[in-house]
Parts: sequence; C-alpha cells; structure tokens
Amino acid sequence: MRATVMYGAGDVRVENVPDAQIKESTDALVVVTRAAICGSDLWPYKGMQPSDIGRRMGHEFIGVVEAVGKDVHKIKVGDLVAAPFAWSDGTCEFCQQGLHTSCLHGGWWGGTELDGGQGEAVRVPQADGTLYPLPVSRDHALMPSLLTLTDVMATGHHAAVTAKVSRGKIAAVVGGGAVGLCGVIAAKRLGAEQIIFLDRHADRISLAKEFGATDIVSERGDTAIERVLTLTNGLGAHSVLECVGYEESTRTALSIARAGGAVGRVGVPQDEAMPVAMPTFFRNVTISGGPAPARAYFDELLPDVLEGRIQPGKVFDYAGDISKVPDGYRAMYDRKAIKAIIAF
Amino acid sequence: MRATVMYGAGDVRVENVPDAQIKESTDALVVVTRAAICGSDLWPYKGMQPSDIGRRMGHEFIGVVEAVGKDVHKIKVGDLVAAPFAWSDGTCEFCQQGLHTSCLHGGWWGGTELDGGQGEAVRVPQADGTLYPLPVSRDHALMPSLLTLTDVMATGHHAAVTAKVSRGKIAAVVGGGAVGLCGVIAAKRLGAEQIIFLDRHADRISLAKEFGATDIVSERGDTAIERVLTLTNGLGAHSVLECVGYEESTRTALSIARAGGAVGRVGVPQDEAMPVAMPTFFRNVTISGGPAPARAYFDELLPDVLEGRIQPGKVFDYAGDISKVPDGYRAMYDRKAIKAIIAF
Repeated sequence: MRATVMYGAGDVRVENVPDAQIKESTDALVVVTRAAICGSDLWPYKGMQPSDIGRRMGHEFIGVVEAVGKDVHKIKVGDLVAAPFAWSDGTCEFCQQGLHTSCLHGGWWGGTELDGGQGEAVRVPQADGTLYPLPVSRDHALMPSLLTLTDVMATGHHAAVTAKVSRGKIAAVVGGGAVGLCGVIAAKRLGAEQIIFLDRHADRISLAKEFGATDIVSERGDTAIERVLTLTNGLGAHSVLECVGYEESTRTALSIARAGGAVGRVGVPQDEAMPVAMPTFFRNVTISGGPAPARAYFDELLPDVLEGRIQPGKVFDYAGDISKVPDGYRAMYDRKAIKAIIAF
Repeated sequence: MRATVMYGAGDVRVENVPDAQIKESTDALVVVTRAAICGSDLWPYKGMQPSDIGRRMGHEFIGVVEAVGKDVHKIKVGDLVAAPFAWSDGTCEFCQQGLHTSCLHGGWWGGTELDGGQGEAVRVPQADGTLYPLPVSRDHALMPSLLTLTDVMATGHHAAVTAKVSRGKIAAVVGGGAVGLCGVIAAKRLGAEQIIFLDRHADRISLAKEFGATDIVSERGDTAIERVLTLTNGLGAHSVLECVGYEESTRTALSIARAGGAVGRVGVPQDEAMPVAMPTFFRNVTISGGPAPARAYFDELLPDVLEGRIQPGKVFDYAGDISKVPDGYRAMYDRKAIKAIIAF
C-alpha cells in the first residue's frame, strides 16, 4: 500500500510499504478515505534528524472498517469511522474520566511501529475504544469538518475548555493556525463575548473574523501584550488559548491572562521551561491544557458539525490525493496553506 | 512606637518608628495583639540588598481597632480584628470573585510606605474591606490558630483548593514549613484519602502525621519522585500542593502529579522560569495557585478553628514578645523553629 514516510527535516515521501493488517485481537483494519496534515507534523518537518528507516506520518483520518479482530465488538466491518489523534482502550481510569490521551493502554499513530493516517490503510489498536462511528456516508459534504474532530477542532475545543471559556467572558487566541482558528470557533461556541485573535496572516485573520473573532492583534511580543491589555480595560483576558507552543507565544499567552484567569495551552511546547513563573503566580493565573482527548469530545461536537452550527472544515485550504502529501507539507510549512486535506 | 525593620540580609531590628496614624478616611488604626513571622519573610532575610531606610516587616496580625476614618462603617472601634496578608477594598471585581490578593485598590503590608504587622500598631488601608472581626476576646486560647487564618492556614487551604483536593483523592504536599503543614490540614479537611508529605525534618514530620499525613517521603529530587510514584501505583498524586517555591521543589511537584491532576503552588517562585513545560503538557497537568485570598477564606475556615476541628496554631513552636523578633527570624532561618508568634 502507499503511505507517507518522513526521513528527515523537509524530506517527506509517499512510498510503497507493507500492507496494514490485523495483528492483535482488539485491532481493526481501516481503509482511509480522508486524512489531514497537522501543524504538529511540521515540527519534525522542521527539525527531524535524518533516519534510514523513516517515520510513518499522519494522525488524523477517517475511513471504512475492512476487518476486525475477534475481540472487537462495537465496531463493525463497513462502518465509517473517525480516528482521534491518539488511540485508547476506552476503559482505563483515565479514559473513564475523559482523558483518553493518557490511556494506560493507548498510544500514538505512526512512528516506526505503527501505521500513520497519511496512508491507504491503518491497523487500529484498541479499535472499540479508539474509533468513533460516523452516521454519514463516506463522501458526505461535511467530510472536511468531520475530519477536524479527529484533532484540530477537538484541540481548539480543549484549549477553550481548559482556559475556562464561558458565557460573557473575554477570550484571547494566541496563534492562528488551524488549531487557533478552531479555538475561535470553540470560544464563540462556549459563549465568549469578546474574542481577541493574535496572528498576522491575512488569510487567517479573515477566517478568524468569519468564525467570530471580535478583535485582531497582529503585533508580537510586548507590543501585542500591550494591545490586548488596552482592549481589555487594562486587565487582560479571562481565558487565553495558547495554540502555538513556542516560548514567545507562551510568554504572550501567560502575560495577557487577567488575575484569576486561565491559559489553556495546546501548542506542543518547544522548550523545556515555561517562562514567567513569577507574574503568573502573583496573578493566580491557572495554566492548563495538553493533548486534547479528542475521543472524549465527539459526542459534544459532532451534533454541532452535522447540524451546521460550526464549520471547522473551512480551515482546509489545500486539497489533493496522496501524491500531493509532500507538496501539502511544503505549502503549510511556507505558510501558503493553513491546512491540507487528502482524499483517497 | 516599636516596630520591626529589615535593613538587609540577616539584619532585622526592632526600633522606634513614627506612630501609626490614620491618613485616609477609609483607614483604621489597629493596635496589634499578636503577629507572626512568615516563611516568606525569610526570602529577604536571605537575600535583601543593604538599605539605609530599611523595610518594615510583618503581614500576619491580629489587633484591636483604636480609631477609624470617617468612611469606615463596618469596622468599629474596639473590634478585635484579623488582618489578612494583603489589604483589599472588598468591592472591586476581583474581590467580588474572591480574589482579594488582586484587588484593584489593594496592596501589601510593610515595605517603605506602610506599617508592617510586626510592630505595635498598624494603619490599615481599606479597613472595611480588609479587616475581619473576630468573635472572641483578645487573649482567647485559640489565638494562635486564629492568627494562622491571616496567612499560613489560608495559604495551605488555597494550595489544596487550587490543587483540586476532593474526597477520596491522593494529595501530596511538597515542603513542610508552616504552609505545607497547614496544607496537610487542608487536604485532610477537604477529604483526601492519602496524604503524602515530602519533608525531612523530624519535628515537621511528627506534626504532619498528627495533622493527617499518611505517608512520608524524606528523599529529594528524582528519588523523591520515584518514591511518590511507588506510593501511588505508578500514577502520581491527583493533587499536589507546592509549598516551597524553589525550582527543585517545583520540579518535584510537577513531576509527581498524575495525568489530569493539578498542582496548587503557593510557595513564592524564586526563579523566572518554571521547569518541565513538556511533561506537564503531555499529562494535561493543571498548574494553579498564587497568593491566597486569605480574606475570602475566613468565612469557611473560622468555624472549624473556633469549634476545634482544625488546630493550625500548632505550627507555632517559638513565642516571644517584640524584642524576640530578630531571634525568631534567626531560629526560623536556621530551621530550629517552624514558625514564631509574637505577643504584644
């Protein structure tokens, strides 16, 4: 089968690899119908050390179940299923409390051991716990929005939830990639009254406004912090969604949170330490977030997608078949595209 | 009047200073009956640059109201009052939400502009918002426990609240000073089933056990982390109370929190950056806490003190009159005393 393999920084190839197949009795075999390239795929695309064996890529996909192991009971052959960006058994104590990304028997797609979503088929471990059956046909018009539930929309929602967005509050979204844009959707959906969007790319700003952003801050660093303070009566935002992961963006996020406010960070941290321990302490700012338990959020978000109340699929501005994957990485890396969707 | 002034590291003096007096119409003049030396007073005692004018000390005190300004209506002359470690108007949006330490018109005791609590009298700004009348006589036997409500018991409680301690949970308390010991009381009071106390001083360990600690970890660094993981089935504590503020203690606290858990930090951070951004991110650990809004917690904690359900006053193991203040600092700094109470 054809699948995406990364061999080093900037070196992504679509290659023939061994066909995916069931190995464990709790596996399902899923033939991929849609996949996406993620902003987090760009971290290794930027910095991965060269590797001879390479690393299978992709963790956002929808597909049709072709086979299941003998211990798979909920998922059936023929189901159209969405796979969240982490797999999980659905039964351990962390899954039961809705933190599927910390599943005691779960893990992550791709790498050197598992199939990735940017390929024709995937062996899905813990299929009953991992996969979410979708009540639509495989080429439904809402497929792009449904695909975002596997990662970016769930992640934007997680940022908003952990930043404690609620009705009437002021939210600020740091970073305007697909996750930040979905964070705007999530903040609006949870009732934020004012949504400040921090990014400087015209295409993203335009989409953020469409999604509900009320104020745009295109400056960076201290100037951005000052602008947000000015926009919030000098007090800062109640809820800050950190959707980047760099030290500067984290510093900005922590600095624009008001006393007693919360920062939900979902951008993968690129540094060991977190800045501004002291000011956040004195303002009693809560720092929360992490990898979104996307599996836990399907029940809540799916109806809003199916009934058209949110349209996160608009973050896709690049589409192609699997042969376009390397070009999709490049377009996203060069900020010529926000996010790429791959149809099989 | 006599008051405590710090002139540099290790240089604390009791001196004659100008009498405290009412300056603003919202002030009260309080004659101090009890005061305490705080673990946070030891930070400048350790590192303060020499100063000619010095810095007035003390932020935990109880006293009798001797006079009030014309705009003070709730507090009356003759009231016995407790002063939380920050003063606040009680009416701004932060006070209304219970975050009095971020009061828009509040501030901190002592320094170069205001009286400190370790002196014979104090001008109390925003008296109606700041002071809490106590329904007991000035020499009541519970005075030490009542005095802890001005800071250490409130701070331990804040650590427990922001670390989300609740019934049946595992709590870990990092640091066994007076605040950590009060953190044990608070964790027990909020229903923690297992309370792991991290400290290595025999006197503190003994008191922690009396307060409800179920496990003691006297190791430090990675060994301490391993021990806590062993005690918690490899998963870590649901709630971690960081009661020190050093980088190592913060690293320990963040490392022993389980996935989805919370760290309530109340130790004043001594470093600009916060360690382990990455692991806490991947485990969705929430970092919260800050200066405790002690004023907000009186209503909840006072009945438990008055009815003897908690006895935080046991943290005082050094007592004297104002002449003993310099010796009290030294005893606490040398770890010969946990906490000093001063009677006037």
